[in-house]
Amino acid sequence: MANITKKVSWSGRGEDSARGETTPLLNGAAEEVRYTRQVSSGGGIFHIGRLSTVDLEEDITSEEDSARGRPREIPHNEKLLSLKYESLDYDNSENQLFLEEERRMSYVSFRCLEISRWVICGLIGFITGLIACFIDITVEKLAGVKYSVVKQNIEKFTEVGGLSISLILWAVLNSAFVMLGSLIVAFFEPVAAGSGIPQIKCYLNGVKIPRVVRLKTLVVKVCGVICSVAGGLAVGKEGPMIHSGAVVAAGVSQGRSTSLKRDFKIFEYFRRDTEKRDFVSAGAAAGVSAAFGAPVGGVLFSLEEGASFWNQMLTWRIFFASMISTFTLNFFLSIYHGKTGELSNPGLINFGRFVGDSVTYNLYEIPLFIIMGAIGGLLGALFNFLNYWLTILRIRYIHKPCLQVMEAMLVAAVTAAVSFAMIYFSNDCQPLGEENSEAYPLQLFCADGEYNSMATAFFNTPERSVRSLFHNPAGSYNPLTLGMFTLTYFFLACWTYGLTVSAGVFIPSLLIGAAWGRLFGILLPYITTNSTIWADPGKYALMGAAAQLGGIVRMTLSLTVIMMEATGNVTYGLPIMLVLMTAKIVGDYFVEGLYDIHIKLQSVPFLHWEAPATSHWLTAREVMSSPVTCFNRVERVGTIVDVLSNTSTNHNGFPVVTEMAASDEPGKICGLILRSQLIVLLKHKVFVERAHSRLSQRKLQLKDFRDAYPRFPPIQSIHVSQDERECMMDLTEFMNPTPYTVPQETSLPRVFKLFRALGLRHLVVVDSENKVVGLVTRKDLARYHLGKHGLEELHLAQT
Amino acid sequence: MANITKKVSWSGRGEDSARGETTPLLNGAAEEVRYTRQVSSGGGIFHIGRLSTVDLEEDITSEEDSARGRPREIPHNEKLLSLKYESLDYDNSENQLFLEEERRMSYVSFRCLEISRWVICGLIGFITGLIACFIDITVEKLAGVKYSVVKQNIEKFTEVGGLSISLILWAVLNSAFVMLGSLIVAFFEPVAAGSGIPQIKCYLNGVKIPRVVRLKTLVVKVCGVICSVAGGLAVGKEGPMIHSGAVVAAGVSQGRSTSLKRDFKIFEYFRRDTEKRDFVSAGAAAGVSAAFGAPVGGVLFSLEEGASFWNQMLTWRIFFASMISTFTLNFFLSIYHGKTGELSNPGLINFGRFVGDSVTYNLYEIPLFIIMGAIGGLLGALFNFLNYWLTILRIRYIHKPCLQVMEAMLVAAVTAAVSFAMIYFSNDCQPLGEENSEAYPLQLFCADGEYNSMATAFFNTPERSVRSLFHNPAGSYNPLTLGMFTLTYFFLACWTYGLTVSAGVFIPSLLIGAAWGRLFGILLPYITTNSTIWADPGKYALMGAAAQLGGIVRMTLSLTVIMMEATGNVTYGLPIMLVLMTAKIVGDYFVEGLYDIHIKLQSVPFLHWEAPATSHWLTAREVMSSPVTCFNRVERVGTIVDVLSNTSTNHNGFPVVTEMAASDEPGKICGLILRSQLIVLLKHKVFVERAHSRLSQRKLQLKDFRDAYPRFPPIQSIHVSQDERECMMDLTEFMNPTPYTVPQETSLPRVFKLFRALGLRHLVVVDSENKVVGLVTRKDLARYHLGKHGLEELHLAQT
Repeated sequence: MANITKKVSWSGRGEDSARGETTPLLNGAAEEVRYTRQVSSGGGIFHIGRLSTVDLEEDITSEEDSARGRPREIPHNEKLLSLKYESLDYDNSENQLFLEEERRMSYVSFRCLEISRWVICGLIGFITGLIACFIDITVEKLAGVKYSVVKQNIEKFTEVGGLSISLILWAVLNSAFVMLGSLIVAFFEPVAAGSGIPQIKCYLNGVKIPRVVRLKTLVVKVCGVICSVAGGLAVGKEGPMIHSGAVVAAGVSQGRSTSLKRDFKIFEYFRRDTEKRDFVSAGAAAGVSAAFGAPVGGVLFSLEEGASFWNQMLTWRIFFASMISTFTLNFFLSIYHGKTGELSNPGLINFGRFVGDSVTYNLYEIPLFIIMGAIGGLLGALFNFLNYWLTILRIRYIHKPCLQVMEAMLVAAVTAAVSFAMIYFSNDCQPLGEENSEAYPLQLFCADGEYNSMATAFFNTPERSVRSLFHNPAGSYNPLTLGMFTLTYFFLACWTYGLTVSAGVFIPSLLIGAAWGRLFGILLPYITTNSTIWADPGKYALMGAAAQLGGIVRMTLSLTVIMMEATGNVTYGLPIMLVLMTAKIVGDYFVEGLYDIHIKLQSVPFLHWEAPATSHWLTAREVMSSPVTCFNRVERVGTIVDVLSNTSTNHNGFPVVTEMAASDEPGKICGLILRSQLIVLLKHKVFVERAHSRLSQRKLQLKDFRDAYPRFPPIQSIHVSQDERECMMDLTEFMNPTPYTVPQETSLPRVFKLFRALGLRHLVVVDSENKVVGLVTRKDLARYHLGKHGLEELHLAQT
Repeated sequence: MANITKKVSWSGRGEDSARGETTPLLNGAAEEVRYTRQVSSGGGIFHIGRLSTVDLEEDITSEEDSARGRPREIPHNEKLLSLKYESLDYDNSENQLFLEEERRMSYVSFRCLEISRWVICGLIGFITGLIACFIDITVEKLAGVKYSVVKQNIEKFTEVGGLSISLILWAVLNSAFVMLGSLIVAFFEPVAAGSGIPQIKCYLNGVKIPRVVRLKTLVVKVCGVICSVAGGLAVGKEGPMIHSGAVVAAGVSQGRSTSLKRDFKIFEYFRRDTEKRDFVSAGAAAGVSAAFGAPVGGVLFSLEEGASFWNQMLTWRIFFASMISTFTLNFFLSIYHGKTGELSNPGLINFGRFVGDSVTYNLYEIPLFIIMGAIGGLLGALFNFLNYWLTILRIRYIHKPCLQVMEAMLVAAVTAAVSFAMIYFSNDCQPLGEENSEAYPLQLFCADGEYNSMATAFFNTPERSVRSLFHNPAGSYNPLTLGMFTLTYFFLACWTYGLTVSAGVFIPSLLIGAAWGRLFGILLPYITTNSTIWADPGKYALMGAAAQLGGIVRMTLSLTVIMMEATGNVTYGLPIMLVLMTAKIVGDYFVEGLYDIHIKLQSVPFLHWEAPATSHWLTAREVMSSPVTCFNRVERVGTIVDVLSNTSTNHNGFPVVTEMAASDEPGKICGLILRSQLIVLLKHKVFVERAHSRLSQRKLQLKDFRDAYPRFPPIQSIHVSQDERECMMDLTEFMNPTPYTVPQETSLPRVFKLFRALGLRHLVVVDSENKVVGLVTRKDLARYHLGKHGLEELHLAQT
């Protein structure tokens, strides 16, 4: 029988894969997919006792390199898929226990469940709104204090000279805030770094990122983002809100907190991946909604990033959570601002209202918008490219927490210094208007009654700066100011993203875009003859902001709607869409989106929407992992423990097969059981012998599985005596008796579609006799991607 | 071996199922689902030669009833599932031809395909926008002429008396328009009747409704809707836009028109259900977008109603089509209105802009909105209930086209008469404002400089009336006028929906709701002490409109967004959502949504989002149709022809099995072949014998299947000689070698999820040996629904 040609390179779990450190393991160009299509069926099954072959040849590289402390080549991680990430089970394990419970439930119980889902979504929205409110108020307060102190100091020293003292004061204040924020992230919860959007994308995609939805992460995230925004970094507080919402959802929906060791004994039905993931979608949507005042945008974000299966009721609940979230934020902020009940602050970022005559565009402006989209795409690609290299350098050289904190402090100080220099050398004085839209107008060397225009951009929270760029009347900025600002802020923001602080990239992107967009709008009349028609540079600032943001993050529908909702106006829908589309097309030509880059650099097995276009060549036979470790329907405990303890394979799902005469021959599939289920069974010692001897023993219930969810104990913590090893375990009741299976000839796109549409974790490949020949997991599918040279295959590695 | 207990009642295809007539076939209460769960495996397979048993006992009823012309009991159709509807194949048949083609294609070809998808979506949007534009302008012109004539006539006779002549003129004009519209619908294309939304919902759900996406349907729809709106019926032109968009999409994407007998030889790759359905989603979205100026709402409508599998690129394309559609409409209407390039008319219906101080709401208003939602839910339920009975009466007594035309004319005349009476007896005179928002102010018996307020509601196109109710300043209407208007219009609209004319229910619903909502707003100050705070009745008119529409159609997320976009304002998002949610909950308590009622009355096998909650009792074994007609891999032509010719079964998909020694024993599944594929094979005489004898014969290609798509010839039209009947056909190359299969123990929700997520048409049920034991189709799943007495099972019948 012909052998299956696929070579799985499972490299051993290196001991150097400690938290926070990532060492490159493999390198070299991606191996071309071999189009050998041998018709082999059956064979290649290893049964219990013979575990899958571990191919250690590549591991030597890793040992050598880390010993010498010098990796050989740079593009490493994105050519790998890490084996450390596990998948979520979006597909219910419909075992006997589950079916019995479902069958016991009456129609009324189902209605009650439905109502509790709504209640949970309401709570998620409410708490997310409160958190947004807390972040907003605290940042405003802290930044207010900081800017007042620095402003006074500058005013004091402008006359007498010695502004360098002000500079130092500013830099020190910034660094102090950032140090605090960076310290908690680096030492307490590294997963709280960054915007959290890549992590949530992965979670919704079905990848389990360790510790990403824990309470501790939330606390660190919230404090971290307050510190980094107050510390004057080129960051926003919007991205982290999405992560915060997701954590809130994961917590509330489970009715307990393992960190606080409290179990409220409610919502126990929702303690499984399927339900939790639905709620996390709602939480992420609530986060977007609170951040941008965009409930519909939030729903679309969740759907675009996460849900492959669109369910009407789920979507409606997500929308409810979003609405409650923006409403809560709105309500409490209106109280805080002393305008109770006016509900005029729908989101953290408020683009201000584009109303009146200015809210229109003309047909001849559309080509201009498309040009802006292309510029945004180019600048976005440049941003992503620079950030990509920076991140690789960081992974290699700055992986110690103290170094990370120091880098963050350095960036904070440099940001202050650059800002100061820009303000100092700027000659752009503008008359102080009546409306006084500037929060902290700096006079500096300007005449009385005037203020320094550069300072409105730098000496301000980024949200306010964006709003000024959108709405300040024509002539508030001179072109040089905008040009210089764009240039410096671009590099500052690029350097900042990826630091070990909690911070988002939305606002800096918008700010950069708004600056060059406004510049574009100002310069237009110089190019054309008729100068009156380009009345409103604010419109161009908006389009520039959309273009830049689209060029960096490459979101599509959801971003259009978020921008539409944040401007409170639907008229700009079409131009914003055109701009975003152009930016995405141009940007994608050069390099991927920022979040995708970071996901790839983490070697996450992320499943895209569809299988690569040219992958019809491949079938399940080539894709599947084989041989498969299977269990018998009634299996010896010792065998199970040995399989689970084997760290070199670390499998999570095991097909259950009917016992065959010869143990070598593959058995017929009759079920699928998960590692987590086996662990619970072992923990409760559900052995056939015990059931006979002790009739009083309580029957294992679904509740026992739920109590252990989601932190199932490791196999090492379960003691199994030598006697017990000889017992037998009957898996019939606990295995999923109807796992989805595909024949070996199924094409990759077909397997992919099944996998993605149903949110599977394991897909069993069978031959025509229903015998198990292989197992497809997320990593087997995520390995294939379209590279520059056609279909490429990523390596699997235990990073 | 135990028998399978399910009894399939396939009743023979009656000859009385002529177009336009629907005769009730079966009656009696729905049979309770039997929870007998016998563990039987295998068995019950009929092989070729023995066709599935046809259970004709129920058919006698039909023959008898239609002979006597008197059906026995009323609630009939909604307890049936019609067998006449076939399913769309959303799952590609990945046979060898298909895979070979896909494998031949390079990456560049896939890019080109992708680009042509975008081009098609752009075209769909453009053409849909043009059609909307045409409808709008024509209706405006015709209605303008009509109202001018009637107005002059009324003015002439007001002084001298003899207003009855005006009444007759009005009634005759209305009837004439409606007669024309009704004639073409009733005699040329009955499927163009109504709003078309139920039909498009069914199509997107995967049900093939005959003739629904043909060019002829489009022409009749467009002309019909112009006539019915110009004829003054209580209808809107928005619903039909959705249908029009869908037809445009189906036409454009295929690159040919079978009606016009033109094949442009382009887009041939898209000639299959999978691709076509995607484009129809885009077309429906473009229709919504043009109708309401709501591109995001359009996308959400398509997703909510249709797509179960959410694909990012598809959604983005749908959004593109929507945007182009609203832009095209906007652009051409702006030219028509002489304001070229101003782009101020995004949709057919324009709610006017809610801007300025009025665009806010206060916390204490939220309970009021919820009360309005409840009222809307109640009124909506009443509307649906009345319309349900009316529809049943229509099905029974008014099924002759000429009767249908006469009813439509009657309704038109009555509408005119009632409107006239209301205007005549109304004493509500209002001063003629400066802004002159009324198009045709009727002075009638009012003093000079005043106009009759009732006439603004009746003597106007419904779109303008809605806008007046939203935006006219407080005091424009007195409460009695509004109350009388609501009452009469409610019954008129209810009578009108379901007539044999092309017309939508959106606008009448909005109008009814806006009227009572404004009444609600006016009456509020009388109830409370502080009368100043309820400044703006327009806001309540908007909420009332949302409540009424929600109560009738029960759409959720998409309707919220459509309303938000149509008002051009996101502030009202939360209240609109609350109102719609309340209306849906209250309404669902009594009766289903209007579209669902009409779908049920057509006995369409519509698949909802999830299996009924309490259906975990059922497994594939109980659900599946069995025995299954299977073919061998190499099958005798005569057998195939006989099976296909059997009108009593009329199966569309046949599992292909490996040949067994004993022909009685079920074979192992090795593929699935469709009726349409077999027809093409027979037509081209792809017989084993021929291939050997004539080597020159061209190999059958995918193109041959595409050329025949979607109107595959009936089996009767294919001549097979006696000699040819003895030939053999090798199905290997043409069957789908990897159909999805499930074991018999799979629970119904699991089967349902697989079916819905992948858009399947046939799902093969196999035993542990991979032998075919049954086949699950759409009808097997749609049969189960949650009724008042728990899970109920619908009957299958050939209506």
